[in-house]
Amino acid sequence: VTTGEGAVVQAQCVQVVRYPETNVRDDDFEIVTHPLGPLADGQVLVRNTWTSVDPALRIRLRPNAPAGYFAAFPLGQPMDAIMTIGEVMESRADGFNVGDTVWHGAGWRSHAIIDAGQVAMNGLATLRVLDASRVPAQSYLGPLGTMGLTAYAGLRLLGALERPGTLWVSGAAGAVGSLVCQMGVQLGLRVVASAGSDDKVAWLRDEVGVAAAFNRREANLVQSLREAAPEGLDFYFDGVGADHLEAALECMNQGGAIALCGAIAEYEQDQPGLRNLFLATSKNLTLRGFRASSHADWIEPMQDLLGGWLAEGLISYPESIFEGLSRAPQALADMMAGRTVGKTLVQI
Amino acid sequence: VTTGEGAVVQAQCVQVVRYPETNVRDDDFEIVTHPLGPLADGQVLVRNTWTSVDPALRIRLRPNAPAGYFAAFPLGQPMDAIMTIGEVMESRADGFNVGDTVWHGAGWRSHAIIDAGQVAMNGLATLRVLDASRVPAQSYLGPLGTMGLTAYAGLRLLGALERPGTLWVSGAAGAVGSLVCQMGVQLGLRVVASAGSDDKVAWLRDEVGVAAAFNRREANLVQSLREAAPEGLDFYFDGVGADHLEAALECMNQGGAIALCGAIAEYEQDQPGLRNLFLATSKNLTLRGFRASSHADWIEPMQDLLGGWLAEGLISYPESIFEGLSRAPQALADMMAGRTVGKTLVQI
Repeated sequence: VTTGEGAVVQAQCVQVVRYPETNVRDDDFEIVTHPLGPLADGQVLVRNTWTSVDPALRIRLRPNAPAGYFAAFPLGQPMDAIMTIGEVMESRADGFNVGDTVWHGAGWRSHAIIDAGQVAMNGLATLRVLDASRVPAQSYLGPLGTMGLTAYAGLRLLGALERPGTLWVSGAAGAVGSLVCQMGVQLGLRVVASAGSDDKVAWLRDEVGVAAAFNRREANLVQSLREAAPEGLDFYFDGVGADHLEAALECMNQGGAIALCGAIAEYEQDQPGLRNLFLATSKNLTLRGFRASSHADWIEPMQDLLGGWLAEGLISYPESIFEGLSRAPQALADMMAGRTVGKTLVQI
Repeated sequence: VTTGEGAVVQAQCVQVVRYPETNVRDDDFEIVTHPLGPLADGQVLVRNTWTSVDPALRIRLRPNAPAGYFAAFPLGQPMDAIMTIGEVMESRADGFNVGDTVWHGAGWRSHAIIDAGQVAMNGLATLRVLDASRVPAQSYLGPLGTMGLTAYAGLRLLGALERPGTLWVSGAAGAVGSLVCQMGVQLGLRVVASAGSDDKVAWLRDEVGVAAAFNRREANLVQSLREAAPEGLDFYFDGVGADHLEAALECMNQGGAIALCGAIAEYEQDQPGLRNLFLATSKNLTLRGFRASSHADWIEPMQDLLGGWLAEGLISYPESIFEGLSRAPQALADMMAGRTVGKTLVQI
C-alpha cells in the first residue's frame, strides 16, 4: 500500500443536463468540477486516461430506461458505470500501487476515488490492475474488454464457435460488429457484413476480408441479403434491430439463430415494432438476447481466443479517438449518428 | 393386402372459395363432390371419421401465406395437409387392412385415397395404423398427436422439463394450452394461465388446477401477470402473440425462456408489431420459435410421458365436437373467435 499525500483533487465530471428527445446533442451535457478526497482506507485515487463510448450509453439517456445495467443516468450527477482505464495516483488499498494501470467503472470524468474490491457492473468493472505491457492499455476497453466479451458471447450463444454456416453481421463497422466479423472469418464462417457508408463497406470487404458487404442505406435490405447470401443465413448477429431484424427473419434458414446484443436503432428512436416474428416459428429459429455483463465468467476463454489472434496480428480494431473529456458528448453523438469507425474512445 | 371392389366413391370435400380478409366466415368455403377411384397398387381408400381444426389452418387462408407447412390452401381444390383419422375401406397396400383405424393428412373431406408410404408433413401425417384399443381414436388428433407434440416440444425447448419455475401459458383453454397447463402442473411448475372468458378461467383454476388464472379480456395484461406471478416469469408458452408477448417480455425474469408455437392472434389480423423485444437483451432471454412438425423424432418420448399420465387419468382434454363435414368452416370460425374449449374436432 502506498500512502499518498491526502490532497484534495479537483475532478472534472461530465453530467447529464436533460435526456435528449431524439438525437444526442452536445448541450444535453455539462462539465462540473467536484473536489475529491482525501482517501479513506481501502480506497484508490485514479487519474483516468481513457474512457469508453458505446451504444448502451444512449439507452441510459432516457427517463423511462429499464432497471439494472441500463438504468437511466441521474441528472446533475457524475455518470456512473462506464468502463474506464486510468493510472493509480494514490492508494490506501492492498494490491494497488501508484503508477498501476487499472480499469474500473467510473468513467466520463478526469479522476475518481474507487473502493477497491467493490463489485461493479456484475464484476466486469470491479477495480483491477491490467497488464498493459503487451497490448495498449485502451485495448482493454475494446477487443479485450466488454466489446470482446459481447462479440464472443454472441457467437458462443449462436453456436457459431462450433458449427459452420453463413453469418450476417449488421452494424459491422462498429466496435463490436467489426470484431464479430473478424472472429467469424477466423472461425471459417462465411461472413456477410452491412454498414452505413460506402467507405465502411469497402473497409469491411478489403481490410476485414468478409465474403460480402453492402451499404444498408442504399439498398433494399432483403434484396441485398439475398444477393450477398443466396444460400440463406444460419446466424445473425444483430447490431441494428428494427428493419434489420425483420430482414434477417425473412432470410434465415431453418434452425437458424439470432443474437440480440442491444439494437442500436432502438436506443435512438421509437420504432414501428417487429412485424414478422412469426417466421421464428415457421423456421424453428432461436433468438438469444444477451448482455456481456451476464457472462463475466466467459472473460477468460474470450481473452484466450481473442488475445491469441490479437498477438498474431490476425485481428485489427480501428479506433475513433476524441481528445479531451469535454468532447465525450460529441463522441457519443457522432457514434450514434454513424460517423465513427470501430471502438469509440475518449482520451482524457 | 385386401383387394376391394374397385368401385368409384363420391368424396365430399371442403374447398376454399376465397381467403377471408378478416374473420373466417362460413361462406368462404364450399363443399364439392369428387369421384375417387378405382385404387392403384400401393393405395388405400379411407373413410374419414374425425378431422382436425387447429389455429394453423387460419394462416393458410391468406394469399401471401409463407411457404412450406404453412403454404396457402389452393382455391377451388380439396384442402391438403390436415390431420385426420379414418377407417380403411379398401386397400391395395401392404400393412393396411379393411377396418384398420389410420391417421393421415387428407382431412376436411369424407373419403380419401392415400399412397401408403408417402411421407406427408415431415413424417407426421404419413399414413399409419393406430392402436385405438386403449384410447379413443380421436385422441391421436389431440393429446397424442401434433397437439401433444407441440406442448411437449415447447416445454422441452423452454428447458421446463428439467428445471422448476413459474410458467405462463396464454390461450390456456385452447387445445395446446390446456395440455401445456396440465403438463406443467404434473412437472411441478407453478402454472399461471390466461384465457378469453370467465368460464375458461374458472375451468383452468378449478379443473386443471393451475396456481393462478385470469381473463385476458378484462384486465391489463401486465398488471394481471404481476398479481398472478409476483415472483416473475421463468417460462412463457406463447399461444397468443402480439400484446401477450409484449406483456411476457415485461414480466420475464433474468435468463427466462419463451416458446413461440405460432401465435393465434397474428393469424387473424395485422398487428402493430412487437415494440419491446429489447428486453430480451437486458434480461438475457431466449425465444424459441418451433413447429411440432420439425420435431417428429420427439413423438416417442412425448407419447411415453403423456400416454402414461393419460392412462392414469392425470390429464384430461376437453373436446369441442362439431358433427358433420359441412360444419368444419363453422368449427374453424368458432375456434378463432374463442368460442370453443380444448381440442376442436369435426366428426364426419
